Amino acid sequence: MDLSDRIETGMQTAVRHATANGCPDKLSKALRYAVFPGGARIRPRLCLAVALACGDRDPKAATAAATAVELFHCASLVHDDMPCFDNANTRRGKPSVHVEYGEEIALLVGDGLIVSAFETIARETQHAPDLTAPIISTVANAVGTPYGLVAGQAWESEPEINIAAYHRAKTASLFTGAVSCGAIAARGNPLDWFALADALGAAYQVADDLYDAMGETGSMGKPAGQDQLNGKPNVALELGVEGALKRLHELVHQAADAVPDCEGADMLQAMIRKEATRLMPKKLAASAA
Amino acid sequence: MDLSDRIETGMQTAVRHATANGCPDKLSKALRYAVFPGGARIRPRLCLAVALACGDRDPKAATAAATAVELFHCASLVHDDMPCFDNANTRRGKPSVHVEYGEEIALLVGDGLIVSAFETIARETQHAPDLTAPIISTVANAVGTPYGLVAGQAWESEPEINIAAYHRAKTASLFTGAVSCGAIAARGNPLDWFALADALGAAYQVADDLYDAMGETGSMGKPAGQDQLNGKPNVALELGVEGALKRLHELVHQAADAVPDCEGADMLQAMIRKEATRLMPKKLAASAA
Repeated sequence: MDLSDRIETGMQTAVRHATANGCPDKLSKALRYAVFPGGARIRPRLCLAVALACGDRDPKAATAAATAVELFHCASLVHDDMPCFDNANTRRGKPSVHVEYGEEIALLVGDGLIVSAFETIARETQHAPDLTAPIISTVANAVGTPYGLVAGQAWESEPEINIAAYHRAKTASLFTGAVSCGAIAARGNPLDWFALADALGAAYQVADDLYDAMGETGSMGKPAGQDQLNGKPNVALELGVEGALKRLHELVHQAADAVPDCEGADMLQAMIRKEATRLMPKKLAASAA
Repeated sequence: MDLSDRIETGMQTAVRHATANGCPDKLSKALRYAVFPGGARIRPRLCLAVALACGDRDPKAATAAATAVELFHCASLVHDDMPCFDNANTRRGKPSVHVEYGEEIALLVGDGLIVSAFETIARETQHAPDLTAPIISTVANAVGTPYGLVAGQAWESEPEINIAAYHRAKTASLFTGAVSCGAIAARGNPLDWFALADALGAAYQVADDLYDAMGETGSMGKPAGQDQLNGKPNVALELGVEGALKRLHELVHQAADAVPDCEGADMLQAMIRKEATRLMPKKLAASAA
């Protein structure tokens, strides 16, 4: 099974459990709507790629970790789009969850997907109990507080934003989590992968900022121009498009160079360069290839 | 250490981790605000009481389970109070989280507390890996979808509400989860405790409805009269106060009678009767004693 099949099968299984017989109808529909069709599934792809590079010693645990990371990512998009945050009406080319199903259901979809993420790890690692707590702790650190995605979004409410901490928490943390989980699930050493995750997370933040600043709807499907509109920090607005692009190149190289010595090193380096280019605004992708 | 001390120590530890150095200031304050001072801590008390009745073979795991249940309960109150749900301005005699810190922080506090709940279980069961997945799965089932608290709240958005499924999911599920986790953490059999949990969960739903209908701010600290205002199902509005009170008595007796044969059976039966009375609207408590 290739990476995409593993991820989609994992997501389907998780959503099937979350929307099993007896679930209120609107919630079931909204849960599915928030998850399918997916975006680029970048984080779970990265998680599985690292697991493969580490020998993929426990494919079931790796798929569960990848699924959990993506479920949390989907949850964060649903909550992030809500009126009290970015107030974004569209996502991945369709109305965002709160527009389609109402704010109360959007709030619950986010909560439900977070729970489903942890439930998935617990369910799919029953055969390997020594993996359950390490994977759950790693995901929780990546998504929660004080350093994860939730903290990253909270930085936006501070009178003075620590930009480094903000980007690290809001974007890089989930990449770091995806990479670390992939390593842990394959019984590799997550510390070997930290530099790669860190550089890649930073690279995606810059790419996302470039999308926003250049007026393209980005890979995350968020309408452009939101950052300036909402007064949010944006590297491309700070350094200019050229400066941001230079920074992006540096970070992608840094990420590829940080692939540790392992069986699948060449494959992984190629994948990192390719994915990073694929995610750039189309206007810029050619110059970055 | 008595039950309350164990619970408050567990909650302090969880919040200390969630708000560690580097956490955005407003989020840290709001997380703490949402958790302290607590309400009656009914669910974690029940969890620990069941663990004790089962021999309390792993106090650390039981405290973690109790803490997780209460963290999730706190999260659900924060999200439930938000304008898109109950739009409640006060909770436990002070402004609700979104009134004090803004909606975006309230949303994140809820998300952060959910993550913290699972992180707590993973962190505090590292010494007993075979307990991690069962406790996490049990909590996840109680709080998520299709049958947990999140599903319960989603029933309120359905054109036709299945009242039994609604109450079971919205209130009973977390009691069932608390009881089951307590049993699992003490290496007892959660199935022995199901009937008790079910009756007690239903009893608390009736008590909560009575508060709302009688115009008292309930043990959950929610302002009264919200159900009628928001057109939500309420047993006391359906059966009348007398009918609801009769139902409450029956359920409390049913719960106490369902305590299985165990070391602490008498203690637990007394506790159930006492807590149930304590949680009733003051106007009714005397008649129920």
